[in-house]
Amino acid sequence: MTKIIIVGGVAGGMSAATRLRRLMEDAEIIVFDKGPYVSFANCGLPFHVSGEIAERDNLLVQTPERLKARFNIDVRPESEVLSVDADKKEITVRHDDKVYTESYDKLILSPGAKPFVPQMEGLDSADNVYVLRNIPDLDKIMSALSEVQSGNATVIGAGFIGLEMAESLAKKGLKVTIVEKAPHVLPPLDEEMAAFVKNELIRNGITVFTNQSAKAFKDNGKTIILEDGSELTSDITIMSVGVQPESSLAKEAGLELGLRGGILVNQNYQTSNPDIYAVGDAIIVKQEITGQDALISLASPANRQGRQVADNIAGIARQNKGSIGTAIVRVFDLAAASTGLSERIARQHFEDVAVVHTNNKDHAGYYPGATDVVLKLIFNKNTGVIYGAQAVGQKGVDKRIDVLATAIKAGLTVADLPELEFTYAPPFGAAKDPVNMAGYAALNIIEGVSESIQWYELADELAKGKVFLDVRTEAEVARGYIANGINIPLDSLRDHLSELDPNKEYIISCHSGLRSYIGERILKQNGFKVKNLDGAYHLYSTVKPEEIKRD
Amino acid sequence: MTKIIIVGGVAGGMSAATRLRRLMEDAEIIVFDKGPYVSFANCGLPFHVSGEIAERDNLLVQTPERLKARFNIDVRPESEVLSVDADKKEITVRHDDKVYTESYDKLILSPGAKPFVPQMEGLDSADNVYVLRNIPDLDKIMSALSEVQSGNATVIGAGFIGLEMAESLAKKGLKVTIVEKAPHVLPPLDEEMAAFVKNELIRNGITVFTNQSAKAFKDNGKTIILEDGSELTSDITIMSVGVQPESSLAKEAGLELGLRGGILVNQNYQTSNPDIYAVGDAIIVKQEITGQDALISLASPANRQGRQVADNIAGIARQNKGSIGTAIVRVFDLAAASTGLSERIARQHFEDVAVVHTNNKDHAGYYPGATDVVLKLIFNKNTGVIYGAQAVGQKGVDKRIDVLATAIKAGLTVADLPELEFTYAPPFGAAKDPVNMAGYAALNIIEGVSESIQWYELADELAKGKVFLDVRTEAEVARGYIANGINIPLDSLRDHLSELDPNKEYIISCHSGLRSYIGERILKQNGFKVKNLDGAYHLYSTVKPEEIKRD
Repeated sequence: MTKIIIVGGVAGGMSAATRLRRLMEDAEIIVFDKGPYVSFANCGLPFHVSGEIAERDNLLVQTPERLKARFNIDVRPESEVLSVDADKKEITVRHDDKVYTESYDKLILSPGAKPFVPQMEGLDSADNVYVLRNIPDLDKIMSALSEVQSGNATVIGAGFIGLEMAESLAKKGLKVTIVEKAPHVLPPLDEEMAAFVKNELIRNGITVFTNQSAKAFKDNGKTIILEDGSELTSDITIMSVGVQPESSLAKEAGLELGLRGGILVNQNYQTSNPDIYAVGDAIIVKQEITGQDALISLASPANRQGRQVADNIAGIARQNKGSIGTAIVRVFDLAAASTGLSERIARQHFEDVAVVHTNNKDHAGYYPGATDVVLKLIFNKNTGVIYGAQAVGQKGVDKRIDVLATAIKAGLTVADLPELEFTYAPPFGAAKDPVNMAGYAALNIIEGVSESIQWYELADELAKGKVFLDVRTEAEVARGYIANGINIPLDSLRDHLSELDPNKEYIISCHSGLRSYIGERILKQNGFKVKNLDGAYHLYSTVKPEEIKRD
Repeated sequence: MTKIIIVGGVAGGMSAATRLRRLMEDAEIIVFDKGPYVSFANCGLPFHVSGEIAERDNLLVQTPERLKARFNIDVRPESEVLSVDADKKEITVRHDDKVYTESYDKLILSPGAKPFVPQMEGLDSADNVYVLRNIPDLDKIMSALSEVQSGNATVIGAGFIGLEMAESLAKKGLKVTIVEKAPHVLPPLDEEMAAFVKNELIRNGITVFTNQSAKAFKDNGKTIILEDGSELTSDITIMSVGVQPESSLAKEAGLELGLRGGILVNQNYQTSNPDIYAVGDAIIVKQEITGQDALISLASPANRQGRQVADNIAGIARQNKGSIGTAIVRVFDLAAASTGLSERIARQHFEDVAVVHTNNKDHAGYYPGATDVVLKLIFNKNTGVIYGAQAVGQKGVDKRIDVLATAIKAGLTVADLPELEFTYAPPFGAAKDPVNMAGYAALNIIEGVSESIQWYELADELAKGKVFLDVRTEAEVARGYIANGINIPLDSLRDHLSELDPNKEYIISCHSGLRSYIGERILKQNGFKVKNLDGAYHLYSTVKPEEIKRD
């Protein structure tokens, strides 16, 4: 009888344990977890803070009793695995005050990632600074919140969890400030897409500091000193500046580690010791698009890895093909999602990166309730290979990014996107879905039908003497405009071509990019030199609101 | 200057016209339509009947004036093209009482499909029978409805439009009866998936007759005589039994026709006359999965074709790769969608067709508001090639079918589905998305980890002496059960193995299929012969409610 020990429950560990049982009815399976719960909804924790998930018990997915009854798994919570003796194939465990050893035939490490907490002056004596990784962390935060009914909350770090916590704390009635070291919130996204999220945070009363970090604490944490010397008063502070692999046990066991202390595994999830496997947030995986080592802390890959390691141990060969990384966050009424590489990362790895932004309704505009989906596609301007995609909007963001994640995994190019046939009825979509439209836009770039510049290139282009041509209506221009130049509404452009100078170069813009593209085509075919401001006013005014002019 | 004439507006025709203008600024482009509107939201028509799209004007996408101003397109509504002289390259047009000719260099036919109206006794003298294809049809129905405030409505044909009309009429306060000739509503779906829709219709007060057709009308349409001789009283009747290509002009012009009168085109959309192109519902396309000729009346392919034919005429080569067919319908609180082939059609074309049904929440179960997505995957049991997919549920149905449509287009197999990385945060999805889960289930079938039978095979299997093993709890069984047999709740199955006979064969079932699969694995590994009832009680009781037993 094979004896399999799993260290760490939740996504990777519990997926491995239950799949192992389904494949190896006779195996002895023991799951150790140092926390009190081996199976809880870690992605749900912030939503209990807001009260959306009203019952704490709803976060507890499985109990040891249920796991025993259904899967005959020996689950041992509050049991910390202190060490692994790889030669003797045994582990040392502490439960309460008792320390004992347990032998294994196969060992699966699923320790996860732990919140990264930087060294900061005054942090040790702060009594109101929390991280959020598990149920005990949540309990501490809930207990603290019961004493801070209103007041100031600070979230340090504007990643996915940080933003969910900021929203949850605001919904609890606190005045929330976000401090993010990077130049923009949601660092996995590009700046102009993250700007929609920033605006949504501000619209909901949250103060956002970017390019700013917490340097020190004083007054037992009540005061946070920022890098620029300014101070924040904070009744409760959440540290959410990222995670790092919980690999100390692996390291102590002599297993090979790699990038940022992540556990090295082969494609079958074997560590440097062939009887010890590892899965989940603690392992180094291959970023499928770049082919490079990466640490990807997401529930979906962890679940898959847990199942696949079980298959490998049970004799069904499975290879870890790596991950592209797909994620979403809801921020008040907005959703923001990404898959694959950001433009920033893509440009670090590849030549000839091109980008398009489109703005289409989530469903047919003539059916009530349609809202904008701003979609960004990052691709190779020669081959059409898709490097990544990002989307923001109130509805339908998850769907479009899921489709594009599938397209990337399948190796589709932008030329394939218009061919995709989606469900269409007025409540659900559009005859030309936003994904189709993004494909058309990208294909226009590849085939030279359209040329564009990005929002961050505009200032330079205008400085070189190019002329800004706004094809919105006068009424739109009156509400705000990007740059001095010429305003000719699109529908009268053909009648005013004589006013344009064939020796000048033009940058054309409208509200969302549709009219400027039509205008670009009219001008190009009349011999003018013109490029489209990708994303147009809607995108530019979101990422550069301070530069919008009004007469 | 090239002169291009387009016959028929809406999806295919207007997409062609606007793309042509963007590529050929100098071309003369004329669009003829025999109706009063060249650009309207045909998929939105039923939603104006219900009042969801409150304003009729919202259905009018573009006007001739706007198309002239923006695209310099000469749009001529209420202009019927009477004939095409392919040798002289000219058409004859009637507008009001005037008949004139117009020459062309390139002609694009986009006539669409028209409602099929069978020959029926009494139909000619019926004054309350309507079809719904365009705005004038809609106007007639709205006018009739203003006189029939309540009363009985009949919808003949339970396809996508028929169901939308049935719901809309019910929402207007009418007592609605649906008459469908096929054995079930929504004939493009398989019977057990359509059964969810049928139940939703009934739950909302609609009377559903299947395996039944209207044979004749009497009393000016007030009475409908059905095939079995019974009669229905109907104040308003919608005929929605399907469409046929509107190819009379093409036929008269001597162009080659094919399947059911559809217009034959090559991959570049050229008809048998190289200067005449055709797109949209009237053309024969390749069903991508079977490789056979097909007529696919959907807005998404029509839009793509319109754009592609413009590209071809403008010198950008595009091939029509065919269509897989993806569609969705909302029926009250339920959505039902499909892509690719149904099980029925797949079995007609391929050997070794396998099927799995899964039932998972649209988003994390611990986050409020999660609802079931029942997903059906149709695939090759050896290669894993995906032939089709269907889904029903209240939320997230469009997303999963869009992802699977992308997977089919990309040639992914069921083994690729677990690898797909979707957006996951509790409000949007699950760490193991329904698509991942369907992939795992299909892979279990392919790899022999699980064996299953379909709902329609159960009676035969039990007749052969197999034993029905229900692993639900006693309380669940008390609420209804499928067949006499043994009831052992899953969590005590291991303790009761001695009660099972190793010489018998078992069919195992639970509520949704998750527990029965776990039970199947326990039994198989203990040497028992067992197959899983795919979809379990939830599916079986939906499609065979009359067979559910209660003590």
